[in-house]
Amino acid sequence: MQETNGKHWSGHPLKAAVAWEAGKPLVMEEVEVAPPQAMEVRLKILFTSLCHTDVYFWEAKGQTPLFPRIFGHEAGGIVESVGEGVTDLEPGDHVLPVFTGECKECRHCKSEESNMCDLLRINTDRGVMLSDGKSRFSIKGQPIYHFVGTSTFSEYTVVHVGCLAKINPAAPLDKVCLLSCGISTGLGATLNVAKPKAGSSLAIFGLGAVGLAAAEGARISGASRIIGVDLHSSRFDEAKKFGVTEFVNPNDHDKPVHEVIAEMTDGGVDRSVECTGSISAMISAFECVHDGWGVAVLVGVPSKDDSFKTNPMNFLSERTLKGTFFGNYKPRSDLPSVVEKYMNKELELEKFISHEVPFSEINKAFEYMLAKASLRCIIRMGA
Amino acid sequence: MQETNGKHWSGHPLKAAVAWEAGKPLVMEEVEVAPPQAMEVRLKILFTSLCHTDVYFWEAKGQTPLFPRIFGHEAGGIVESVGEGVTDLEPGDHVLPVFTGECKECRHCKSEESNMCDLLRINTDRGVMLSDGKSRFSIKGQPIYHFVGTSTFSEYTVVHVGCLAKINPAAPLDKVCLLSCGISTGLGATLNVAKPKAGSSLAIFGLGAVGLAAAEGARISGASRIIGVDLHSSRFDEAKKFGVTEFVNPNDHDKPVHEVIAEMTDGGVDRSVECTGSISAMISAFECVHDGWGVAVLVGVPSKDDSFKTNPMNFLSERTLKGTFFGNYKPRSDLPSVVEKYMNKELELEKFISHEVPFSEINKAFEYMLAKASLRCIIRMGA
Repeated sequence: MQETNGKHWSGHPLKAAVAWEAGKPLVMEEVEVAPPQAMEVRLKILFTSLCHTDVYFWEAKGQTPLFPRIFGHEAGGIVESVGEGVTDLEPGDHVLPVFTGECKECRHCKSEESNMCDLLRINTDRGVMLSDGKSRFSIKGQPIYHFVGTSTFSEYTVVHVGCLAKINPAAPLDKVCLLSCGISTGLGATLNVAKPKAGSSLAIFGLGAVGLAAAEGARISGASRIIGVDLHSSRFDEAKKFGVTEFVNPNDHDKPVHEVIAEMTDGGVDRSVECTGSISAMISAFECVHDGWGVAVLVGVPSKDDSFKTNPMNFLSERTLKGTFFGNYKPRSDLPSVVEKYMNKELELEKFISHEVPFSEINKAFEYMLAKASLRCIIRMGA
Repeated sequence: MQETNGKHWSGHPLKAAVAWEAGKPLVMEEVEVAPPQAMEVRLKILFTSLCHTDVYFWEAKGQTPLFPRIFGHEAGGIVESVGEGVTDLEPGDHVLPVFTGECKECRHCKSEESNMCDLLRINTDRGVMLSDGKSRFSIKGQPIYHFVGTSTFSEYTVVHVGCLAKINPAAPLDKVCLLSCGISTGLGATLNVAKPKAGSSLAIFGLGAVGLAAAEGARISGASRIIGVDLHSSRFDEAKKFGVTEFVNPNDHDKPVHEVIAEMTDGGVDRSVECTGSISAMISAFECVHDGWGVAVLVGVPSKDDSFKTNPMNFLSERTLKGTFFGNYKPRSDLPSVVEKYMNKELELEKFISHEVPFSEINKAFEYMLAKASLRCIIRMGA
């Protein structure tokens, strides 16, 4: 750690938004960010955004709490320095940090079909770096825990090289930072897993950011009917911007939602994507696809003790059920091309951004999300 | 019906093996076989074989019994005459009758992904022809019911043109008749749905004819580990002929079979195919595939009230569960190429044939199957 006259190697004291306790507002703190060790990269975060997963672990209901911690995992930044053995990246490269990684060596990374890297797969319990089991963040010597290997609510952070996607430096980081997590998750669920054909029908369960990204994928695929399913009818107007053509609120019907959808579509939709994590929505998303060719894709994370139950004849009549993790994108190999989809105007990201706040007001982003007022709130680190 | 001096248009009295009552031996009877109506074909059956489905409906436990009835649906024959509107077939053509059809007009037939024809999908309750709701079989004026549109336990039968695959006339009907049902079902489950890669691992639940056909598909695909799962260890020796490399009898283990398989394969098999219809085997077949890329395919037909239950995280970690019907083969479009696989020695059929009997001894075929002594018993119609 080079430090002179109270100033950090970066030229000024570094700030991070630290969560000291579950559910309590983050506190802006001056932190030390240690240099990157072997296979690690230190990067300057320019923009980050808030995702439900940050809020879920910040609330720490149901998991073992790990505090003090620096949350944040949707972000865009620039490489400041690299540790030993890092050959893919150099200072100045534009990168998206990702909560799950790609070591390029394990069976998953070598499989065309998987993105669930054995080494760098998401680990929400670990608050330290993989190599030495230590944190790179500290405040006056007190270690501050990392979150999913990214901790982007900090002006600088240290990330394993396998969790960084090098992207086109011309891409605006205040937009493409969204591709670090939620938007890629929904988009990939449709483009990489559900794979709807042009002219087909698709149902999306849950019209939050991930579900709307799944809709965006369906729009890009040329699906002609995109049926949005949500318990909040107020979301339909916004959903239209994402190509959703019809809306079903299960509360408006006496019969099960899969039957409602089957009636609307002469037997079922061609594809469905489940983005709520509710077990009943998962089952409905499966049962609403057409026999013979229907494919349902599960994205939303269920509760620990949930059980998926269905009549096995629903499978025998040639329905497929698949789950996906991060939209089946391999972070390093695939994200650069998703950024290009935005650059060539195929993918629209602006419509996902409902709010923007300076870093100093990061707690507002939490308030917007808790009030269900925001889709995505961009947090500008410079301010 | 042209009949002269007690002789049929065929030149001799026609014989069929009639099931008069549930579970009672079939009785050889002289039957009348009416001419084919519009879109129907009358064919001479040369060889037929016995499948579990015949036995299941003959026993009529749990379904509404429909008797007297002529069973039989795995067969090979030659077109004798065609009804109005039949342009694809002419007398002399070699055909395989199939219990499910392909109208070539409905959404399923027009979909690349489905073989579940809306018009001619299997119907086990209907004992009459589709066009006029009548039977083409009679004994002294008493109608005898059809079975799944094929009724091949008869020297002649009448079948909808959509349920007949025209095949290479050089193919030996005493072998390729097996492709009418069980063997294609298992083979297609692997080749068309599970699609194992060369060098991959695959588990097969149930080592009857369908399961062994799934193994044959895995052998053809170049799978390097084919793990057979069966409650009868005696089946393993025979299974080796079909490429099965390892055997697991769930009764030999204290832990669940999916855990046994996961330990054998460093986390799970690449693919699995379930051919028993037991709900616990279905669940195990799903849970034994590897995360990231594992695909489980359900073939066996479950009991009516079964419920498939699993932890949804098994899907979220990128496993896929699919069901198949008749191996996803479209009967008319695809079976001719399966026959060619046999003709070019890629597919071996001889090893499925454990017994052969003349038509007059058809009840022996039932005895062999009930004693679990046979894999497939070929019934020669000429004798």
